[in-house]
Amino acid sequence: MESLLLNSEVTQSVPIEAIKDAVEEAFQAYERGTVVMPPKSYIDLPQYNGDFRSMPAYVGTDSWEGAAIKWVNVHPDNPSNNNLPTVMGIIIYSDPETLSPLAIMDATVLTRKRTAAATAVATDHLAVDDAHSLGLIGAGTQSYTQFEALTQVRPINKVIVNDVDDDAVDTFIDTYPDFEIQAGTVHEAAACDIVSTVTPAEEPIVPLSAVNPQTHINAIGADAEGKQELNTNILTEGCVFVDSFDQAIHAGEINVPWSRGDLDEDDIYGELGELVSAGDGLAIPQNELTIFDSTGLAIQDVAAAHVAYEYATGLEDIPSTSLFSK
Amino acid sequence: MESLLLNSEVTQSVPIEAIKDAVEEAFQAYERGTVVMPPKSYIDLPQYNGDFRSMPAYVGTDSWEGAAIKWVNVHPDNPSNNNLPTVMGIIIYSDPETLSPLAIMDATVLTRKRTAAATAVATDHLAVDDAHSLGLIGAGTQSYTQFEALTQVRPINKVIVNDVDDDAVDTFIDTYPDFEIQAGTVHEAAACDIVSTVTPAEEPIVPLSAVNPQTHINAIGADAEGKQELNTNILTEGCVFVDSFDQAIHAGEINVPWSRGDLDEDDIYGELGELVSAGDGLAIPQNELTIFDSTGLAIQDVAAAHVAYEYATGLEDIPSTSLFSK
Repeated sequence: MESLLLNSEVTQSVPIEAIKDAVEEAFQAYERGTVVMPPKSYIDLPQYNGDFRSMPAYVGTDSWEGAAIKWVNVHPDNPSNNNLPTVMGIIIYSDPETLSPLAIMDATVLTRKRTAAATAVATDHLAVDDAHSLGLIGAGTQSYTQFEALTQVRPINKVIVNDVDDDAVDTFIDTYPDFEIQAGTVHEAAACDIVSTVTPAEEPIVPLSAVNPQTHINAIGADAEGKQELNTNILTEGCVFVDSFDQAIHAGEINVPWSRGDLDEDDIYGELGELVSAGDGLAIPQNELTIFDSTGLAIQDVAAAHVAYEYATGLEDIPSTSLFSK
Repeated sequence: MESLLLNSEVTQSVPIEAIKDAVEEAFQAYERGTVVMPPKSYIDLPQYNGDFRSMPAYVGTDSWEGAAIKWVNVHPDNPSNNNLPTVMGIIIYSDPETLSPLAIMDATVLTRKRTAAATAVATDHLAVDDAHSLGLIGAGTQSYTQFEALTQVRPINKVIVNDVDDDAVDTFIDTYPDFEIQAGTVHEAAACDIVSTVTPAEEPIVPLSAVNPQTHINAIGADAEGKQELNTNILTEGCVFVDSFDQAIHAGEINVPWSRGDLDEDDIYGELGELVSAGDGLAIPQNELTIFDSTGLAIQDVAAAHVAYEYATGLEDIPSTSLFSK
């Protein structure tokens, strides 16, 4: 029983369009109940200012199924102390029938891609059809993946990038010389047709006055209790979708106003699974202010791992290992 | 960042004495509160008559620390349908400070060894000093590991093996030609100084009349709700130790009489962590009937992975992989 070993060079080359399609199928399966996803579990290690997270899931769609566990960390001191990324991860991708480990892979790059893939799914369903401008608030690693994923779903020809670090903006612009990308303020970025917020902000940085009434916003940065990027009146004015209601109210963009009682169930339009499952009576907002609150689910990791595995089986010279003897 | 790849041939050769020592240290750490161990999480897949389990933990002892996740299954149809073991598993062993995956390893063999190591720890503390006979009820894979672990802690010179399958007994005896091993009845095996029950029995198979008043019993087979190997009066007469109170009352040897109210907290002498933590006021039973109810904890997996990793770093020609690029 051979397990493919997929390093970050391989996972970097997995097409994000294919991950987007698989993530959409995973959310359809989530909605109809053919996934198994226990809650994330945490190992907090305050002595290292970090934590480990275990994210297991099974996904069964009409066209594929898979089971995987992601072992991922958040160690903010990794870059300065150890010359390592803040977030790293490994996925073991298994055959659900036997547990046979089909592949062991880098999850650092795949996590970025599956996060962007979910926002691309939400954007594809919610942004105006002729959206052509993209505002990126935050110029870290996820903003690159946002750019690559969102330019697939709308005819983007103008990008405005904002970051408190000018060098980060310059580096971003230099990475895509063939694209019209400009540095801009938060207000300029927030005025685009599609906006993604990918900052570590603890307090809201985007006011309602900055956004257009037909904007679609992907709120990605708030990933823990107490974090928020958008002013609460954006959330109460717009149509809010979440990937998972339970995760979002605890650790997503909506967690702070939810805990204060400034937002309630009536302010949540629906889950992404409902949005992508046509014909179940959900009226999809048309030409309205919409927000997708992304927290990240293990089923997205299974979808990304499935695509990476299928992709790698078509490549030559992928190393493998056999952990089990006969 | 290289990760060692330890297959089952390597993990098979990791000395069980070293795993026993590390498991004892892990239980000491558990007792004093320097471990983090979220509950096991389950993915039930009835369509494949199986499940996947995620077992993450961090262990910090005086001499070593480690973090790991075990991804392990129980698929009873694997042998007949897929020519694979019922239980397989993989461990990712990480540096707690960074998540760097130090090693990715077979957990199938290590799970057997860490289970036997915990029983060896319990036996070492509870069996009479001059115990020289060992009864094994059940002759499956775990009985081999029991034999190998328990003969390290007492001067065993007589072994009696029982199984409903005569061939399994013959194979066991043939495996250790230099040892005095005999086939025997349940009563004959249960009359030894040390007894390990490692069967899939759903109903008790060992009566109180069969055991001596100074016997130490390791009850290992009952690993799910509704399973029990020892008559309840053995549990009420003897001094019962558990690895984890919470796991034992739900899925260990004591779960059935506990759920029926035939056993209560007064019948549980203590946890293994208390037993191995000297000087905290627990009177260790001397020359009494004792029972260790083994359910298996993630901290044992971390201990085994730690030992396997340290062992492998001293070997040549161990393959490795680098999942993350610079």
